[in-house]
Amino acid sequence: MQDMEIIRVSDPADPRLADYTRLRDVNLRRHLEHEHGLFMAEGEKVIRRAAAAGFTPRSFLLTERRARALDGLVTGADAPLYVVEEETARELVGFDLHRGALAAFHRRALPDLGTVLEKARRIVVLEDLVDHTNVGAIFRSAAGLGVDAVVLAPRCADPLYRRSVKVSMGAVLTLPYTRLTDWYGGLDTLRGAGFQLMALTPGEESVPLREAVAGLDADTRVGLLLGTEGDGLSSRWLEGATARVHIPMADRDVDSLNVTAAAAVACYELAQS
Amino acid sequence: MQDMEIIRVSDPADPRLADYTRLRDVNLRRHLEHEHGLFMAEGEKVIRRAAAAGFTPRSFLLTERRARALDGLVTGADAPLYVVEEETARELVGFDLHRGALAAFHRRALPDLGTVLEKARRIVVLEDLVDHTNVGAIFRSAAGLGVDAVVLAPRCADPLYRRSVKVSMGAVLTLPYTRLTDWYGGLDTLRGAGFQLMALTPGEESVPLREAVAGLDADTRVGLLLGTEGDGLSSRWLEGATARVHIPMADRDVDSLNVTAAAAVACYELAQS
Repeated sequence: MQDMEIIRVSDPADPRLADYTRLRDVNLRRHLEHEHGLFMAEGEKVIRRAAAAGFTPRSFLLTERRARALDGLVTGADAPLYVVEEETARELVGFDLHRGALAAFHRRALPDLGTVLEKARRIVVLEDLVDHTNVGAIFRSAAGLGVDAVVLAPRCADPLYRRSVKVSMGAVLTLPYTRLTDWYGGLDTLRGAGFQLMALTPGEESVPLREAVAGLDADTRVGLLLGTEGDGLSSRWLEGATARVHIPMADRDVDSLNVTAAAAVACYELAQS
Repeated sequence: MQDMEIIRVSDPADPRLADYTRLRDVNLRRHLEHEHGLFMAEGEKVIRRAAAAGFTPRSFLLTERRARALDGLVTGADAPLYVVEEETARELVGFDLHRGALAAFHRRALPDLGTVLEKARRIVVLEDLVDHTNVGAIFRSAAGLGVDAVVLAPRCADPLYRRSVKVSMGAVLTLPYTRLTDWYGGLDTLRGAGFQLMALTPGEESVPLREAVAGLDADTRVGLLLGTEGDGLSSRWLEGATARVHIPMADRDVDSLNVTAAAAVACYELAQS
C-alpha cells in the first residue's frame, strides 16, 4: 500500500502516456496492445471490475475533473496515476473522454482449453467474428444468461480490445475464455470433451432452437457455435457440429437475426432449459 | 420508363452530390436529411428493398467499378445516376465506399397511429433510445420475429438514419412504424387500443419473461416497451405499463442485457407463444 501519487501531464506526446495513444486507431492499437501485453479499461465501473478480477494495472489516466474518482483503487495499486486536462486527453486518445477514466492493465496468458472446459456445462464457441462490438455484446449476454465459458476460433476478434471490453460491460474480464490453436480439428476436441455442439445457422435441414433445446438431457454439456457476421459458420464447422439449429423467422425478407441477437436468443433458450 | 443516363461527376463539391455529403457527420446529416426530407440507403440489397417498399429515389451514386450494379432499378426510376471515382466518393461521403452503392430516397409522411395499430397484434414500443445502431438492430429482430409494427416515443432516434437503415438490413423500410406525438399520454392511447403493455425492466417486482408470456391469451394484443440504453424506461412509462417483466440473469455482476439483446429475446419469446 502506498500513498496515491498524482502525476500531472500536459504534453499528449509524453512517452509515459504512450499506452493511451489514439484509441480509435484499430491497426495501431492492435499492434501496440499486442506488443506490450496490455488492454484498456474505460469508465470507473469497468476499471473496478478489471481490478476485482485480479488484473494488474499498468497505469491510470483521469481527467482533472475526475482526478479523485478512483481513489481507493489507485492508492492500493502499484501503478502511476496520470492526470491530464480534457484537451490533452482528446489529443492523446483521439476523442472526448466524457467518462473521464481510463486504465491500462497487463494481459494474462490465456488458460488452456482443458481448464476452461473442466467445470463448464454451457459454452459459446465463436468462429471468425471480426467485429469487436459483437464479440463484447455476446460475452455480456453469455455471462448474463448462464453460459460458463467462451471458446474462440484462432481468427476470432480479440475480446480484450477496448470496444469489446466496453460493450461487454466488463464481462470479458470475468467470464472464462480461451482460444483454440487448431481451427480444423477444434470441434473434434470439444466433442471429445463430451460437448454436444449446436450450430446456429439459418440454413435448411436445421431444427428449431426450442425443439433442439427441449431434446437435451439436463446434464448434457452443450456448446453453441456461432459464425461470422456475414457468411455464418464455415462448412467445416457445420459438418463438425452435432446438430444444426435455427431461430424461426416470421418475415421472408429477414432471413436471420444479427449474430448478437441470435446469440442472446440461443443463450436465453438454453438458460431456460 | 426511360433509358439509364449515367452522369459522371469528378468534383466532390459538385452541388448535385450534396445529398451525399459527409455521411458520418451525425449533426450535419440530421439537419440535412430532415430539411430535404430524404434518407440514405447503402448497398444494393437495401437499395432494392427501399425501391420494392415503394420509396421514391432522388438519385443514385455508384463508384465506377459498380456502375452497372443497379441497372434494372435505375432505368425504371426517374432519378439521376451519378457515377464517381472511388477517391471522389471517399472525399464526398467521408469513408471508403466498399460496397460501392448509395441512393437517396424521399421520405414519406409517417402513417398515423391508428393505421399502424389497426392490424397489429404484436408491437414494440421504443422510448428514448439514442443509438441509431440499436434502433436498426431492434427493427431487424422485430421484423424477423413476427412483430407487426413499431411505435416510437417522440425523442427516440430516427429509424431512417443511415446507420439504422443499414443495421436493420432494410427492415425499417418494410416494418410499419410511427411516432407518438405525446410522450406523457402515449401509453394511455396504446392501452385504449386494447394492448397489454409489457415493460421490459431489470428492476424488482417484475415477472420472468417466460412466465408473463405464458399467461397471455392467444389473441391478446401485446406491446413490448423498451427504454433507453442506460437508464431504461422512465418511471412514467413503467407506471403506465400493464406488467413489468424481466429476463432472468444468471450472473450477479451482469444486471441486464443490452437493449438489442433484450429486445431479441423478448420478441423471440412472444413469437413462440
